[in-house]
Amino acid sequence: MIIVMQHQATAAQIAAVVARVEAVGYRASLIKGEERTVIGVIGDDRPIDREQFEALDGVEKTVPILKPFKLASREMHPADTLVSLDGIKVGGPRLVVIAGPCSVESRSQILETALAVKEAGATALRGGAFKPRTSPYSFQGLGEEGLQYLAEARDMTGLPIVTEAMSEEQVTLVARYADVIQIGARNMQNYDLLRAAGKADKPVLLKRGMMSTIEELLMSAEYILAGGNSRVMLCERGIRTFERYTRNTTDINAIPVIKQLTHLPVLLDPSHGTGKWEYVIPVARAAIAAGADGLLVEVHPNPVEALSDGAQSLKPEKFAQLVREVRRIAEAVNRTV
Amino acid sequence: MIIVMQHQATAAQIAAVVARVEAVGYRASLIKGEERTVIGVIGDDRPIDREQFEALDGVEKTVPILKPFKLASREMHPADTLVSLDGIKVGGPRLVVIAGPCSVESRSQILETALAVKEAGATALRGGAFKPRTSPYSFQGLGEEGLQYLAEARDMTGLPIVTEAMSEEQVTLVARYADVIQIGARNMQNYDLLRAAGKADKPVLLKRGMMSTIEELLMSAEYILAGGNSRVMLCERGIRTFERYTRNTTDINAIPVIKQLTHLPVLLDPSHGTGKWEYVIPVARAAIAAGADGLLVEVHPNPVEALSDGAQSLKPEKFAQLVREVRRIAEAVNRTV
Amino acid sequence: MIIVMQHQATAAQIAAVVARVEAVGYRASLIKGEERTVIGVIGDDRPIDREQFEALDGVEKTVPILKPFKLASREMHPADTLVSLDGIKVGGPRLVVIAGPCSVESRSQILETALAVKEAGATALRGGAFKPRTSPYSFQGLGEEGLQYLAEARDMTGLPIVTEAMSEEQVTLVARYADVIQIGARNMQNYDLLRAAGKADKPVLLKRGMMSTIEELLMSAEYILAGGNSRVMLCERGIRTFERYTRNTTDINAIPVIKQLTHLPVLLDPSHGTGKWEYVIPVARAAIAAGADGLLVEVHPNPVEALSDGAQSLKPEKFAQLVREVRRIAEAVNRTV
Amino acid sequence: MIIVMQHQATAAQIAAVVARVEAVGYRASLIKGEERTVIGVIGDDRPIDREQFEALDGVEKTVPILKPFKLASREMHPADTLVSLDGIKVGGPRLVVIAGPCSVESRSQILETALAVKEAGATALRGGAFKPRTSPYSFQGLGEEGLQYLAEARDMTGLPIVTEAMSEEQVTLVARYADVIQIGARNMQNYDLLRAAGKADKPVLLKRGMMSTIEELLMSAEYILAGGNSRVMLCERGIRTFERYTRNTTDINAIPVIKQLTHLPVLLDPSHGTGKWEYVIPVARAAIAAGADGLLVEVHPNPVEALSDGAQSLKPEKFAQLVREVRRIAEAVNRTV
Repeated sequence: MIIVMQHQATAAQIAAVVARVEAVGYRASLIKGEERTVIGVIGDDRPIDREQFEALDGVEKTVPILKPFKLASREMHPADTLVSLDGIKVGGPRLVVIAGPCSVESRSQILETALAVKEAGATALRGGAFKPRTSPYSFQGLGEEGLQYLAEARDMTGLPIVTEAMSEEQVTLVARYADVIQIGARNMQNYDLLRAAGKADKPVLLKRGMMSTIEELLMSAEYILAGGNSRVMLCERGIRTFERYTRNTTDINAIPVIKQLTHLPVLLDPSHGTGKWEYVIPVARAAIAAGADGLLVEVHPNPVEALSDGAQSLKPEKFAQLVREVRRIAEAVNRTV
Repeated sequence: MIIVMQHQATAAQIAAVVARVEAVGYRASLIKGEERTVIGVIGDDRPIDREQFEALDGVEKTVPILKPFKLASREMHPADTLVSLDGIKVGGPRLVVIAGPCSVESRSQILETALAVKEAGATALRGGAFKPRTSPYSFQGLGEEGLQYLAEARDMTGLPIVTEAMSEEQVTLVARYADVIQIGARNMQNYDLLRAAGKADKPVLLKRGMMSTIEELLMSAEYILAGGNSRVMLCERGIRTFERYTRNTTDINAIPVIKQLTHLPVLLDPSHGTGKWEYVIPVARAAIAAGADGLLVEVHPNPVEALSDGAQSLKPEKFAQLVREVRRIAEAVNRTV
Repeated sequence: MIIVMQHQATAAQIAAVVARVEAVGYRASLIKGEERTVIGVIGDDRPIDREQFEALDGVEKTVPILKPFKLASREMHPADTLVSLDGIKVGGPRLVVIAGPCSVESRSQILETALAVKEAGATALRGGAFKPRTSPYSFQGLGEEGLQYLAEARDMTGLPIVTEAMSEEQVTLVARYADVIQIGARNMQNYDLLRAAGKADKPVLLKRGMMSTIEELLMSAEYILAGGNSRVMLCERGIRTFERYTRNTTDINAIPVIKQLTHLPVLLDPSHGTGKWEYVIPVARAAIAAGADGLLVEVHPNPVEALSDGAQSLKPEKFAQLVREVRRIAEAVNRTV
Repeated sequence: MIIVMQHQATAAQIAAVVARVEAVGYRASLIKGEERTVIGVIGDDRPIDREQFEALDGVEKTVPILKPFKLASREMHPADTLVSLDGIKVGGPRLVVIAGPCSVESRSQILETALAVKEAGATALRGGAFKPRTSPYSFQGLGEEGLQYLAEARDMTGLPIVTEAMSEEQVTLVARYADVIQIGARNMQNYDLLRAAGKADKPVLLKRGMMSTIEELLMSAEYILAGGNSRVMLCERGIRTFERYTRNTTDINAIPVIKQLTHLPVLLDPSHGTGKWEYVIPVARAAIAAGADGLLVEVHPNPVEALSDGAQSLKPEKFAQLVREVRRIAEAVNRTV
């Protein structure tokens, strides 16, 4: 950490900051510039509370030097983490394509979709049994019944299952049925949930919050890793900006940034990233071109009847086209679908 | 709802949309403009899923006409809701000033602060026993022990207690000790938590998420109201923008907007809204000038030792100055502290 | 400036950075932390190009220590700058209230408005003769004819005139008729215009761009100050965020931040800040409570006929109410209107 | 346009709005819903001023139905516009790759870079002679001397020249030397400049403002098209968001959105889109995968010595790698470099 003193800070104020730095066990190294003094704090660790120092008289600001995440950091763990998912090693050369409806709506809907996405080339099935909905009057998911249908779809198709848990108890329940526990964007900073996921014995798919920085995403991954679960996959799904033609703004920069900062695999969800099915295929291609390790795509056999996210869901034939086009991009970056 | 057809939509596509509107029980009213057709949907209610219609061929977009919230809406409930808090009717002419530390750190810290803020003119005490922290390595709160100290502080000072619950179970626990259950910005869309708060028999202070719209805040209030708890207070606490000199951008516009859209009282938190103690007093004055029903302010007897939010905490003497200055503004808008 | 080296930076890379620092005439001071090395650059001045150093091998990032503005900085110029405007010293205890229509539409419209705002308590008249409009099909202003009507309105009422210039040549023209040259939000980073304003012998009202940080606003002020014109007034007018109930988000935090960073006066424009007339009065009160030195308000005798900004314009009687309410807030912060 | 009346609007208020609609020459079509009345305005054209109607009593809001741009719209002009640039038809199957330094710094620098990018596969040369700089103390460009060096570089390499004009007069000067007039992000809403570009007889490269919506970008294109210049190329270059690891957030969604809304070609600038050279290649690949018609890339022979944008500039050998990788992606989407 670096502490920048105010222009008019007194010698006594500087001495007090140094004393405080040493009192909490670090060493202080002063740089006296022409206009102001800067104090380097040596030996501090990530959990340091910079705000305490900002509250001292004469301090203008503090600047972190170390990244706040450790276990998630590529500096501490240079080799790529590969997460096994039914034969695919996510993060390796073969891409994972997780497809399915936003919500499990009925047994027939999920079985029909599972067969269709399997045939089109999906490597895992997604579908929500528990749904976070903005309105209390909207469909809230089938709950455990939905999980049972998902399990049946896996038995029928062999596709591993990815589904969301929204609370500590749901983690246990979801882990019983599913192959991957998804933590949704709205829950990215639900710390009790993250801790529960850290104790689960299933891989976790952690989606970036629509209002969260990449650093916050990695801090949330850190919670899961610190809890003992090292099988974490990240997912960029669009952030909230001022642009209104699309539901969110897909942060394509996030793909190379995340690959540089962490060893964990990263997927991209072009359905939420754009919010309109017409834009899903080009953005899926872009994700793979940018280096993403896979995709999370909403597919519904009949979007007009979908109980949620109809406007951003692909019909199965469009999804088949997506897989074909993405396969060509994958080859161009030396990967496979 | 209004459905806007594409420029090149065919008569058959328009007919299919009308048929769909009628099939789900509404009436359709067509406006044929020179460049495109618009379909008014009559009889639809708030839970309508606009996305299903957007998935129909030839539809360009849909536009909601009704606001998605009902119980929270001033249209449905024109009179101001007053929430009783130990003698103050929040939402009435007397302002509520809730002050205290970010976290309860020790018995002596909270008792000392309670006495100080009481003397300076606070009308309620805040302090977190359960803390959502970005880093798994940061102080996470004292838990139930913290709630006990808060209760002791209330016994000593007579100040009602406001404290945060982060999960369903914590709602029950917090409700046992506190006078107001706070739902924090990161949990504004934790729907299980909102449902639990809807069943609690204590007032709820619902903070706006840092990248949530005003409409989403009111939809979250709707969850609590729909659950049966009508004692909801809202709190603006700053939103995330591109500006970097402050931690958040206080959305002062939100005060008159919220007062117009809903009958619920609205407070403002200038500590999180700015993130730096130097700016807290002017923004507190602005909040009351804009029509807020009260303030939520972080006060710490020794910010340099604070385990969280030191940089934005006022010392007790600064808080006393805040109350004095806010009192003069309150008089200028015909209210009292 | 501080240069943060990468975790894995080699001794040779560190030496090369130090050599480069010294080659351009500064001194380097090393802090060797446990995980990485930080290099303090001493003697650098504001125009330093940090990007050159970021392009060196082994450098992770650079961190500025000095603020990039100098003449605009309160550190270099601690006393408040007062800008004389027809008897009012803007930045002093008496507030300035600049009111009038978005556009000068006709002789009668501007004369009628001038009389009305004068009677209601305005201390200057605003009105655009040159209008930046998003659409090429919208009214673009009366040009010099509008300036003549403004001058006539000044002769009739004694109110000084504030009007916008959008290019170098317009600066000369506007300076001939007006008392204050306004630089609009869309032109905040039109550097040729800023340089022209720096050579003008009239005060300048510089509006913050809707996409600009406070630091960028102060850098644009620096252009004008560096050109030799020290009579600069700043104006916060709302920034673009994700919130959609209002046209912009008034950054109320900007008022105390700007007062702390610079010696220049700062006004607030609640009309653009909110975009809806219903919210203008409460936000005007908030601005003064937060410490603004004045207001810029859109007033139109008949908003329904306004050729621009009708929805955010106050009728004269509402403006009179604004002045009455703001006067009470001004007294509460020891100022006058 | 649709006018939504307030819930409590009276019959007289509705009648007054209808009368106003008819008075300005349109027809009104009423839809009486259960909770509120909606008025469709028929026969209105794009330049309609919605704000006038929002200022009427009883009106809650207005909703545009037609897009505000006309000449830029694909609805009015379904076929792709191809802009000829020295043999390449930009917008057709062959991609354009425009590369070069941020600023022309010296004769040798631009000649050296021109040869290097030509050899690596660039199809046009970029370089700024007039530079918009945030700080008045930074290098502001060589002016006309820079244009002469660019012309010399063209003579030597055969590469057409793309360079920025920042004011009306510069348009004339730049058009004399360059093959394409660039309008930079900060000037996207400099309407005098757009009008001048509309009268120029050279193609225009219009960059999206960093906090401008796609709709605003198309409205600015509309200015140029309405002025008579139909050779407009658009360029996405990243928008300003809350994310801080990158300088801007590349809006990859904008590529398919723009291709759908307009017939004009669209390029992407991964250098400004990311702000760090490490991320430029993956984002360039993503741009082409998403359907962009070309790239604008900053290349500098020695980024450490660059007078601007060093951190985001590629060295020539890295640029050669970019072209190789982009070529493979281009083939995967049936295009060529």
